[in-house]
Amino acid sequence: MKIKIGPKNCLYPMPTTVVGTMVDGRPNYITIAHVGILDFETVSLGSARSHYSNKGIKENGTFSINLPSAEQVEKTDYVGIVSGKKVDKSAIFRAFYGRLGTAPMIEEFPINMECELIHTLDLPKHDIFIGRIVETYCDDSVMTDGAPDFEKLDPILYTHFDRGYWRLGDKLANAWNVGKRLEDK
Amino acid sequence: MKIKIGPKNCLYPMPTTVVGTMVDGRPNYITIAHVGILDFETVSLGSARSHYSNKGIKENGTFSINLPSAEQVEKTDYVGIVSGKKVDKSAIFRAFYGRLGTAPMIEEFPINMECELIHTLDLPKHDIFIGRIVETYCDDSVMTDGAPDFEKLDPILYTHFDRGYWRLGDKLANAWNVGKRLEDK
Repeated sequence: MKIKIGPKNCLYPMPTTVVGTMVDGRPNYITIAHVGILDFETVSLGSARSHYSNKGIKENGTFSINLPSAEQVEKTDYVGIVSGKKVDKSAIFRAFYGRLGTAPMIEEFPINMECELIHTLDLPKHDIFIGRIVETYCDDSVMTDGAPDFEKLDPILYTHFDRGYWRLGDKLANAWNVGKRLEDK
Repeated sequence: MKIKIGPKNCLYPMPTTVVGTMVDGRPNYITIAHVGILDFETVSLGSARSHYSNKGIKENGTFSINLPSAEQVEKTDYVGIVSGKKVDKSAIFRAFYGRLGTAPMIEEFPINMECELIHTLDLPKHDIFIGRIVETYCDDSVMTDGAPDFEKLDPILYTHFDRGYWRLGDKLANAWNVGKRLEDK
């Protein structure tokens, strides 16, 4: 039976990321799972307007998106619990920089995307940051045949209603393939 | 060792959805996993500009996002393989409608979000549709304590580089919680 539950975003699970910014001259990090793929080089981040990180994104026009492995769940969660307004989080990770210069990326995390801000949407309580990826850095340990391998990455998936972190499960099928069985029916 | 792989969107896995639209007076469906959470009531869809579905979204200003279970992977994939320009996909699912009237939702899929278009972004090859959710419909079979339960849903997760569909795995930890262990260190 269908139940109306009000307007609730159910686009879960989402990959849990840590977003790196430069705020007041120091690297800062925040956990964000309200992310989106717009196209193959463009991403969105939804971040409550009160967050300290938003200031850095607006001032510099840059940010990074860093993808942790499951074993990094404690630090990943921690930087979402404490605010950069109160705690200096700059030493929690080893930062490296790409060509933008103001988007600290996390050396310990296997995949890093260096982004420049191209657009901002103002929603009632959230800033939506649209970023163009200028470079992606990937540890060779999580690659297969030259491409990121998400089974090797062992990402942290977030679901909202239970506030849960989950792992990636088993392969189910091949996309653009399993549906072909229905083509002649 | 970090390898530069060029600007590649790595925000995977993403939940695989089927988007419902009304095009030329008929329900049409397309598989989309390039989705995003902007805030708790706002979503994004990235759809290549050539897609038939885009016409319906632009004309009606409405669409639905429907979340399948793993057992529905064949039909989910099929509607992403064949274009509505060539094949009438209206009878593949049983459609139901909410208050917008022009956003066909899929009765067989456990979760359905009825959306109105509030903004469009034009990227080089993709239309980005920003939608506000007006109502969410959820089968009671995939709910726990009145909220969607993604373990019960058994969603289809998409990864791009291997074109894979994956299942949700095991619970890893509790968010806003597991990181507290680091607070006093």
